[in-house]
Formats: sequence, structure tokens, C-alpha cells
Amino acid sequence: MHHLHLVSSSFTIQNPRLCPNHSLSSLHSSSPLSFTSRTPLLLSTTRHVRKKRSLQCRQSDYFQQQNITRRQPPNDSSFGGALQPRVFVGHSIYKGKAALTVEPKAPEFTPLDSGAFKVSKEGFVLLQFAPAAGVRQYDWGRKQVFSLSVTEIGSLISLGARESCEFFHDPFKGRSDEGKVRKVLKVEPLPDGSGHFFNLSVQNKLLNMDENIYIPVTRAEFAVLVSAFNFIVPYLLGWHAYANSIKPDDTSRVNNANPRSGDFEWSR
Amino acid sequence: MHHLHLVSSSFTIQNPRLCPNHSLSSLHSSSPLSFTSRTPLLLSTTRHVRKKRSLQCRQSDYFQQQNITRRQPPNDSSFGGALQPRVFVGHSIYKGKAALTVEPKAPEFTPLDSGAFKVSKEGFVLLQFAPAAGVRQYDWGRKQVFSLSVTEIGSLISLGARESCEFFHDPFKGRSDEGKVRKVLKVEPLPDGSGHFFNLSVQNKLLNMDENIYIPVTRAEFAVLVSAFNFIVPYLLGWHAYANSIKPDDTSRVNNANPRSGDFEWSR
Amino acid sequence: MHHLHLVSSSFTIQNPRLCPNHSLSSLHSSSPLSFTSRTPLLLSTTRHVRKKRSLQCRQSDYFQQQNITRRQPPNDSSFGGALQPRVFVGHSIYKGKAALTVEPKAPEFTPLDSGAFKVSKEGFVLLQFAPAAGVRQYDWGRKQVFSLSVTEIGSLISLGARESCEFFHDPFKGRSDEGKVRKVLKVEPLPDGSGHFFNLSVQNKLLNMDENIYIPVTRAEFAVLVSAFNFIVPYLLGWHAYANSIKPDDTSRVNNANPRSGDFEWSR
Amino acid sequence: MHHLHLVSSSFTIQNPRLCPNHSLSSLHSSSPLSFTSRTPLLLSTTRHVRKKRSLQCRQSDYFQQQNITRRQPPNDSSFGGALQPRVFVGHSIYKGKAALTVEPKAPEFTPLDSGAFKVSKEGFVLLQFAPAAGVRQYDWGRKQVFSLSVTEIGSLISLGARESCEFFHDPFKGRSDEGKVRKVLKVEPLPDGSGHFFNLSVQNKLLNMDENIYIPVTRAEFAVLVSAFNFIVPYLLGWHAYANSIKPDDTSRVNNANPRSGDFEWSR
Repeated sequence: MHHLHLVSSSFTIQNPRLCPNHSLSSLHSSSPLSFTSRTPLLLSTTRHVRKKRSLQCRQSDYFQQQNITRRQPPNDSSFGGALQPRVFVGHSIYKGKAALTVEPKAPEFTPLDSGAFKVSKEGFVLLQFAPAAGVRQYDWGRKQVFSLSVTEIGSLISLGARESCEFFHDPFKGRSDEGKVRKVLKVEPLPDGSGHFFNLSVQNKLLNMDENIYIPVTRAEFAVLVSAFNFIVPYLLGWHAYANSIKPDDTSRVNNANPRSGDFEWSR
Repeated sequence: MHHLHLVSSSFTIQNPRLCPNHSLSSLHSSSPLSFTSRTPLLLSTTRHVRKKRSLQCRQSDYFQQQNITRRQPPNDSSFGGALQPRVFVGHSIYKGKAALTVEPKAPEFTPLDSGAFKVSKEGFVLLQFAPAAGVRQYDWGRKQVFSLSVTEIGSLISLGARESCEFFHDPFKGRSDEGKVRKVLKVEPLPDGSGHFFNLSVQNKLLNMDENIYIPVTRAEFAVLVSAFNFIVPYLLGWHAYANSIKPDDTSRVNNANPRSGDFEWSR
Repeated sequence: MHHLHLVSSSFTIQNPRLCPNHSLSSLHSSSPLSFTSRTPLLLSTTRHVRKKRSLQCRQSDYFQQQNITRRQPPNDSSFGGALQPRVFVGHSIYKGKAALTVEPKAPEFTPLDSGAFKVSKEGFVLLQFAPAAGVRQYDWGRKQVFSLSVTEIGSLISLGARESCEFFHDPFKGRSDEGKVRKVLKVEPLPDGSGHFFNLSVQNKLLNMDENIYIPVTRAEFAVLVSAFNFIVPYLLGWHAYANSIKPDDTSRVNNANPRSGDFEWSR
Repeated sequence: MHHLHLVSSSFTIQNPRLCPNHSLSSLHSSSPLSFTSRTPLLLSTTRHVRKKRSLQCRQSDYFQQQNITRRQPPNDSSFGGALQPRVFVGHSIYKGKAALTVEPKAPEFTPLDSGAFKVSKEGFVLLQFAPAAGVRQYDWGRKQVFSLSVTEIGSLISLGARESCEFFHDPFKGRSDEGKVRKVLKVEPLPDGSGHFFNLSVQNKLLNMDENIYIPVTRAEFAVLVSAFNFIVPYLLGWHAYANSIKPDDTSRVNNANPRSGDFEWSR
């Protein structure tokens, strides 16, 4: 059973005729990033492989919960009993054939013996792609996800209007099933430079599945992503926690000033 | 009755001879956004239609309240009894024939059963255009408004010095009066590249009204808008609320780390 | 008596041979801002007029207080008895012939009858120019100041590497002595594109004084200014106060959501 | 004894073939910063001098503590007993021959007699370079450090894709051993424009040591650094402390508004 989410009508008529043709055949990257230009494509992104889709949608508590949200895509987190109010945020782009939601995910901190904390895992941005299941309806039960690391976010932030990049993920990297699932996210310029295609390919040999979801992102939508990414990067790194701890009347920091100064420039 | 607002004299002589000629006839967009270049203009923005203006200014409590503010344009919000101090902010650009005020408007949050919150409606930026009614006087009673969505803000943030964009709004979209009121905001480069024209056209068939307010915005003024927009976008998305909830000593988040990690990259 | 401030030695050797020749004679603006290109120069910025300087340094409590600071330039503010700790911040650029300090100055808020606040005066950035009085010594008693408005900050933020801009201020604008003191700040590209000259001219007919202080600012130093300016602009506008009031669990805001939505796009 | 840190395996295959050849011989700066182009190189960055390394790794409490961290590089700070949780943050780039960690370091504040504070020392960003000691292993005991001043950060923030810059530090500047230790950080574009080389040379005549650590930084990684640097610069300047003190209901600030206004534009 698929769970469909209706997009409520909007009063804004925006880019009504954008990208009538979703074919990637005429796409070319005039100045691709160097580290991608030498990388052979592992998956053809123009074969929109949907045959052999034998997956059944999981009927879980998780998706049951999602039924109550309509336009918003499901949240993966299941926080409960937090002392302060949790907030689920994201930002969605809805197009004719797919929807894309971006969600920041917090870094993790580990307490040290001293009572201080350190960042033990940087945060990331979760991309969720859902295929359309009708007019303004998206099938979040068939979604595919891709976690953008901080460096991959840096790639997108610095991506020129005519540039492309791609990322390869193996969820089983380093484990016994390594190589059996490959995810490729390609971000390629639209032929007329008016935006980028986001194309997520998932090749799953375990399930004999080949999924491909793509969505055009206009330059304006991309600018919002870049603005949001630029905002969130310091938080994903945990630098905000350090920055917020910088206070004028914090004498403990001032007291440590002198011994530090010499050490930093002269370590041996 | 119109309510006029006097602009107090400023000690700064700025751009005194900017844009003596407000005609748009020589404007051209050297590299317009692709999604606008193919869109036929619905309203001619060069006919400054003012004939048939039969509207009477509304005499309401709202405008009475506005009399106490002089330079500041009226605020549309009517918050009262808030637990913490509310702040009305905006930023205004005053020119010979019109004034433009931009005001951020907060997103809306909805509580979930879990006690958490989610963003139920993204914020926006309200543009208010008021025609001049004399030297340094603006008629806020005749103002026209336009709400910039986050994506439209993205369009402006990424707008090149020689580029243009336009947005179409129908306040009755999806309702019985759909199509009877059309708003078009055009942002076009000044011929010499020194800034942009903001041009708001409102065609109201219900009131047999055709209003057109335009204002030149210098590159410096545009840079302030872009800086303010870049600042506010994460707040309009609600991402600040998520970001601010990321704290090192928040053990509830750390505890949820492990189950999440696997799920995000491997959803089926 | 002049109050000299010694710059403490730094371990960083930076740009040691930058700008050996301070002459502006070979400067040209390849693509100046349009609103300055048509403005005739009111003061020649290449005559470094120092003759007729008959001013005596003011011997006030203010400067006495400044004696305790060495490298830091004096602060103009005289806050006292604040409930929370005040912080004096600035950022200084020290060069062979002059020093430049930039200091943000807060906006002003006015309480409304409703208990809310509005921004009654936008903040600004105070530039303080002090001529050198010896090796690593600057004469803050002879300083000249210039207050950058938010729009003027926007001008600097958007200034290209080969562009120039200039601002004219009359401290007596609108008063009886209007026109008797003229301040001109010119920011012009260095001939080799490696930075900009900041040049402040003050012509004071009341005191028969003509002062001209200029300082080269490297691209790196300018980037720091731009970064700091981009950070501070939303605060100068007061938008941070609005942004910080956006909280998920603020039900008073949510309750006002419905009536607002219609109003903003449909005002008459 | 060297302390090796194992990098845990990552599920992300990123830029796997980037920069197979670390030679700098074909590097050229097409448009270097002007203040570096005239500066003769003090150290050849292509001689990877490791001979005569006679240093013993220090066996201190500090390094003992570092043993418990694996992937994270050691923190130089030794805060203890702070009233609020301290956070150690950084951001690391791991490559085949070296690792680079960047860490913000807070500014220092000094209390004034009035109870206010001023920034007495701007913050900086500490770069730590560690050579590789095997596959995914880095020898933090042999690390070299370099403290980026705010202006040097500005240099990196504004560095074009084809531009280079370099900084010279003498830890003993102004002291008796001045000139005996020279540190040079060069940031040069990769030949194909896909990123920059960070190259730290340390020449220590006291220890008869010549160390050279270099690491390629992709454009994506550089974008993350720039984003983090842009975020942190206002904190390093202490401007955040001033900005955060700007509150609408702060009457002490409003009361000082009138006398200030005149002073700032008219100082004598």
C-alpha cells in the first residue's frame, strides 16, 4: 500500500512551464568538477528503470504515523520525551514527477571526562526523493533517501550554474554486503542554465531493484537550498556550540589565555 | 482620506540624481531567468494605469493607529497580549515617486502529539509599495502589497546585475473569484546596470482597478535586501528553531543517534 | 596635546611591502557605481590638505579615559550602569600613515502602546580614521569619523574589486550651518586590484579646516569588513529581534495566523 | 613514540582518485594576490625536507589524554572546571599523506572599570597539520600548527579558484630568537582548478629542523572552510557579543541615543 500525500493548492503561480521535457539526453556539463569528470558513470541516469520493482511498502508504525501529515514529507526521527520542544523542519520542492525534501540532521556530541563535550559525528542533510503518484500527489512510501555529508554540502554550495557534481554512497561500505547497493546522486545543470537536475539512482542487487528519481530544481530553488545550507553548515560542524560559549564575562576562558597563546604557534 | 507620512530629513546626501527618468521603455533584460523569458507578459508594465481608480481609502482602526507613525510604514500585524516583547521590523526605501518597505513574516508551527513541533507554513517577506503624495510624503492608504515566498526570495537573492525576474500571484487562486485579481511583480535591471526596478502591477477586475507602482532600487539598496533576505531565509524555513535546539548536553538526541544512522542511508 | 596609541608588535609578518606609494594619481575606476560616476567631485581627494590646521586637541574626560587603552582606538560610547554587561567591539586596520577602526552601532527601538517595540532608527557602522603620529603610533585625538548608513554598508558589501563608490555627508544638513561642513568618503580600487583606498575628506568652513586621511585596505582586510558587515546588517535593521522572537511554542503568533494570511495578499 | 589515530571507515566514497600526484612542480598562480606576487619565496615548498628530524615526541599528560580519541585530532585547550559545558569543535580533512584540522579559538575580553567589556585580543583559527603514518593513520605527535589571524582568514575567504596566497609567521617575532623559526603557509590552486593545496613549511634553526606538510583541499572542502570561516569571523571579532546585547527593551541604550547621534558625525 502506498501512502499518498496531497499538495494543497497554492496561490502562487510559479514557473508554470518549467522543464516540460525531463529527458536528460541533451544535458552536458560544460565545466564539471574535476573529481567527477574522470569518474565513469556507474549507472546510466537516462534509463528510468522501474521494471522489476518487486518491493512491498513496509507497513510499520513509522508510516502509520506519517498518515497524519499531508503535504509535509515524513520525518525519520522519532524523538519523544525531550525536555525542550523538538522541532521538525525541512524544505520541500514539489514538481510534476517528484518531490524533494531537505532536512538538517544534528551533529552528535560526546561528553569528556572534564565535563566538556566534543563533536563525535558531524551532522548532515538528509535528502528525500519521492516519486509523483498523480497530480500534486507524492508517494512517500516509495521514497529514496541520500545523506549529504558536510563536504558534499560544500560541493553544492560552490556549484556554478553550469557545473555538475555527483556523489557515490554505499550503505554497506565496509560490511559484508559492500558493493551490493550503490547510490548515486547527480546534480547537473539544466541545458538552458536555469537550474539543476537532482537525480538519485539506487541500484540494489540484494532486492534486484533499480530506482531512479529525478527532479528539476530552478535557480531560485537552488539559491534557497544554498542559503539554508550556508546557514546550517556551522551547526552541522558544531561550531555554533563553541561560538555561543564565547562570552565576555567568562573568566575561565580569559584565565586560560596566556598559556594558550604561546602554544599555538610553537608546538615543539 | 489618505494618510500621508512625512520622511524626516536625513543628513546623508545619497544618489541625488539617481534615475531621473522612470520610463521603462529602454529596459531590456540581457540574460533573464529562463522561466520568465518564455512567459508572455500578462500585464503591460509600462502603461501606468491610474484611470478609473474609484477606491476609497478605508477608514479603520488599523489606519487610525498608523497615524502615530510618521516615517515608518504601517504594520499589518495586530499582535497583542504577547508574553514577550514583540518587535515590528522592516526596512524601507524612499524614492521620488514611491516607497518600498520589506517586512519578514514568521513561519507557523503546529504542535504534534509527541510534544514536538513542525513547520506548518513557511514564512515570507511582505513587500509594501506606497505611491508618493508629495515631497517626501507617501500615501500608505493607497499601498499595494506582495508576499514573497521563500522561493521567490531565492530568485531575488540569486538575481544577477543584468537579470530580471517576475512573479505572478492570484489572491483568489483556487477560489470562486480566481483570475479576477492578478498581481505581477517585475524586477528588472536599470539600463546602466546600477540597480533594479521593482514594479508591482495589480489588476483588479472586481473593482475595475489597475494599479502600477514602481520604484528604482540601487545596487547598494539591493545588496542590503539580499543581506537581510539571506539572514532571514533560515528563519522563514524554521531551520533556526531546529538549529537552536542542537545542544551538546542534550542526551535525548545522542540516545537516538544509533538507530537513525542506519535508517537514513538505507530505507528499504 | 595629542594622545598617541602604540601598536604592540605582532608575530605576523603580513603584506610587508604593500602600497609603498600612497599617491592616488594613477587611480581609475574601471566600472564605478553609476550613481557616483555622474556625480562631480565636490572635493579634490588628491590634495592632501593639511595647511591651516589650527585645531587644538580637546582635553576632556573622554580622552583622559582613552589613555588607558593602548592599541584599541577610543570608544565613543559612554554607557554606564547597564543591567547586563556591555561590550565594546570594533575592528582596526593599522597602516603606515593611518589607522581605521570600524564599530557597529545599535539601532534604536521605541515602545508602542501595545507593549511591542518598533525600530525607530536603524543602526550604523562608525568609521574612525586616525592619522599616524610615528611608527605604529596613531593620533586618535585628531581622528575623523564617518557614520555608514545601512545602505552605504550595502554599497561596500557589493563593491567589486575594480569598483569605487563615494558618500557625501553634511552633519548640519537641514540646520542653519548646512553646507559649512562637508564629509566625503571615497573608496577606490588600488591600481593593481589588490584592495581599495579608503579616503575621508572633511572640509570645515567653520573652523577653516581641511582634513584628509586615507588608508589602503587590502582585499583580505576588505573581505573581513564585508564578512563583518554582512553579519551585522540584520542587527542594524533590528531583524534579529524579530527573528529571535520566532519560537515554535509561541501560541500567540499561531493564533494570529489565519486572519493575516488573507490580508497580506489582498489589501483592498 | 608516536600517537597514531585511526580514521574509521566511512560509507562515502568521495573523490577517490583526486590528486594522485602531489608534486607542486606544475603549479602556477594565474592571478595571485598582489601582495604575494612580489614576495620572494623564503622556503622552497617542493623540497619535502624530513632529514635531520631529531625530535622526540613529547610524553605528556596532554598526549596521554589524546589516546582516547581516535579520529579526532587532539585539542590544545585544557579547560577545566568551567561553569557551563565547554565544547571542543574542529573540522578535519583527511587525505592520503596528511590531515588538516581547523579549530576556532575565541577572542579575549577585558573588563573595564565601568563594568563593560572590550575585546582585548581577536580570536583566530588554529590549523593543525599531521602527516600520515599509514593507511588512514595520522601522526598527531608530529603535527605542525599555524594560527590564522582574522585578516588571514579574510584572505582565504576571498581567494579565487585560481588564486594563491601565503602567510609568514615568526613565533619569536620581537624576542631574542626572532628569525630562528619561520613558518610559511602557502595556499595554491591545484593545476586543474579543482581545489587548493595547503602547504605548511616550518624551518627551525634552533632544532635544525625543516618540516613540510601539504594536503590537497578540494573545492567542496574549501567551500566548507569558507562557510565555517564566514560564520566564525564575527565571533572572532567579538561582534556577536555586541550584536546579542542589542535588545528592544533595553532602555539604557535608548536613553543614550540622543547625545550619541550628534557626536558621531561631528567630532570637533
